This record gives sequence, C-alpha cells and structure tokens, in this order.
Amino acid sequence: MTGEPSRPAARRRGRPARAEAAEGPGARERILAAARTEFAERGYDKTSVRGIAKAAGVDAALVHHYFGTKEQVFAAAIELSFTPALTMPDAIAGGAEAGAGERMARFVFGIWENPVSRPPLLAIMRSALTNDTAATVLRGLVERRLLQRVAGELHVPDPEFRAQLAASHLIGIAMLRYVVKMEPMASADLEEIIAMVAPTLQRYLTQP
Amino acid sequence: MTGEPSRPAARRRGRPARAEAAEGPGARERILAAARTEFAERGYDKTSVRGIAKAAGVDAALVHHYFGTKEQVFAAAIELSFTPALTMPDAIAGGAEAGAGERMARFVFGIWENPVSRPPLLAIMRSALTNDTAATVLRGLVERRLLQRVAGELHVPDPEFRAQLAASHLIGIAMLRYVVKMEPMASADLEEIIAMVAPTLQRYLTQP
Repeated sequence: MTGEPSRPAARRRGRPARAEAAEGPGARERILAAARTEFAERGYDKTSVRGIAKAAGVDAALVHHYFGTKEQVFAAAIELSFTPALTMPDAIAGGAEAGAGERMARFVFGIWENPVSRPPLLAIMRSALTNDTAATVLRGLVERRLLQRVAGELHVPDPEFRAQLAASHLIGIAMLRYVVKMEPMASADLEEIIAMVAPTLQRYLTQP
Repeated sequence: MTGEPSRPAARRRGRPARAEAAEGPGARERILAAARTEFAERGYDKTSVRGIAKAAGVDAALVHHYFGTKEQVFAAAIELSFTPALTMPDAIAGGAEAGAGERMARFVFGIWENPVSRPPLLAIMRSALTNDTAATVLRGLVERRLLQRVAGELHVPDPEFRAQLAASHLIGIAMLRYVVKMEPMASADLEEIIAMVAPTLQRYLTQP
C-alpha cells in the first residue's frame, strides 16, 4: 500500500487539464480539507468519495483524478493530519539523550491538548481501529514517516521496538484521557501525568 | 447510565411469562450470545436489536423484555465479555507487592493472547472508540467493577490514577500489537514485552 496521494498514478487516468481549470483554483486543497472533515466526522467506513466531492463542491471524478481510490484519499488526508507528529524525531533528538522521554511526552500531549490537532488524530485512531484498510494506511505512514526516523535517533537495541513501547504508553493514555474520558485520567493535571510517564519513556528510549 | 442488564426495569414492561416460555428455554442466554457476536462483528453503531433478535432466533420484543434498550443489551454483553478481566484485582494482589507489575502484565496479555477472549475485548475497544454511548457504558463498567477494586489493592497516592497509568500502557500495547498490528510490536516475543513493561507497571502500582 502507499501513503502517498500517488498523483502520478492518478494523472495516468488522463483527465484533460482544462477540466481541472474549470473546477477553479485550489480544488485539490478543497478536496483534501473536505476529506479530512468527512473522515473525522464519519470514520473511514461511512465516508464516501461522493460525499467528499459534494462537501468540496467538485465532481467525484476530480477526487479520483487527484487522489485515486478512497484509500488513497484517506492516505493523503491522514498524512496531512499527521504533519504535526512528523517533527517528533527532532523533538526527541535535541542533542543530549537526557530528557528525551519528557520531550516526547510534552510533544505528544502538546498535539493532543491542541483543539485544532486533536480531532484529526482522533479520527485516525477511530478509523484505524475499525477498518483494516485504514489501519494498513496508518501503519504504512507511521512506519515510513515516523517510526524509522524516531528509531534513528535512539542508541538502544531494537530501537523500533523501544520507540513503539514508548508510543504505546502515550497512545493508551490518549485513549483513556481523550476518547473514553475515564476518570481520574481525563481530568488529571497534565504535569502530573508527564511527571509519571517521562521516566518510563526515558528508560525505553535510552536504557541499553 | 447503568451497566446492569436492568431486568427489573425491563420486567416492568410486563410481557406475559407464557410468551417467554414460548421462546423455549435459554432464550435469554441465546440473546446474550447473539448480542456479543453482533457487537463484536459490527460494532455498536451498526448493531441493531432487530439483528440480535434475528441471530438469536427470537422476537425483537423479547430482547427488549429481557434487557431493555440497545444500550442495555450492550452493557450486558460487554459485562459478560469483561468477566475474564474482573479477576484482575486478585491477580494483582497476590500477597507481596513485589511482582504485582509482572502479574498484571501476564494477566492482561493472557486475556489478549487467548483467541476466545480477544475478539470480545477488541469489539469493546472498537465500540468505545467510535460511539459515545458505548464509551459511557464501558466507562461505567470499568469504574464500577474493575478500577475501584484494583485501586483497593494499591498502597500508593492516587491509586486509581496509578491503576489507569498502568492500564493505559497495556491498552496502548494491545492497540499496536493486536489491532493496528504494527511491527515489530505485533510479532515481538511476549516475554520481551513483559520484561520491558513489568518494571514500569510495578513502579506505577507500588512506588509511593
């Protein structure tokens, strides 16, 4: 599977360029924005290319033209939603290894606590948990764009396994705090959470 | 909300006892089994009382009679699916506090690795992540039947917060390993995972 919009493949479908022009400027961006909203609100299963096209005010054929299949539209949409997370490797690196665990925790919770970046992340989790195609797309994106780069910053055995151990903890906390809203986690002081979790992440990321 | 099947409430709907007899013996159990399967395969949103009744070979009215609303059928179904997890407090207690982290990890992974108990757990996670009513039902069940009892075994500040920190880690690993099937976590040796995670859980569960 590919996480790329795969426009070359789409272009081969050969839709005359004047047709794109007819849709007006920024059609591709409108489609992508509509796709994010549709997937976020309905999840992968209930979202259709037709619905995305309608929300973007374009013809469904143009969605296929730019992105290809529904799976490829989803890939492009979550790649965009994932952009904030893609700088995590830099956050973790930060020169000295000491504090990498806390930096990772603050970075991830910074994204989750942000009302703009949380909904698309929630949508990705929901879709990946309920649809195998969506899970495959997410897996590919994370492996290709995030996991390998994070692992590249680590100097421990099985760096990818270590990175996933750390990530799994943050994912689980996010599920309890932001999705299921289980108390006391849902309303716990973020600093308390970070104080407890940072040493764990630090151990996974740096302890030989 | 209530996590109980609330049969008293349902009984008040007053369906003649002879009608139950007409459905044959074990109708309630058949309905519950059908509900677990339907919710597991379709998730909360796509499951209907009508579909559960059809799968159980009974009249939809009997489902309402025994359990009440769809939400209450779900509550009864996940309470049953949750039964294996309800002995966790005993697993964690086990006398000496030393090793509580490893016992919790082995207990939870024991349930996840079991092909019989995994599907209903997956179904619960999927439903809770995609439907607020399902999340509320799960929250109530966990808080009432599990969290308080686990916390009761701990001798640390904020025992419920500590219990959720430990649980969140295991939930996150389960998501990566069993749901998204992210490598290397998906095929990592379980003993390796436990060796890394147990000390973390031990710290959360016992460190003052």
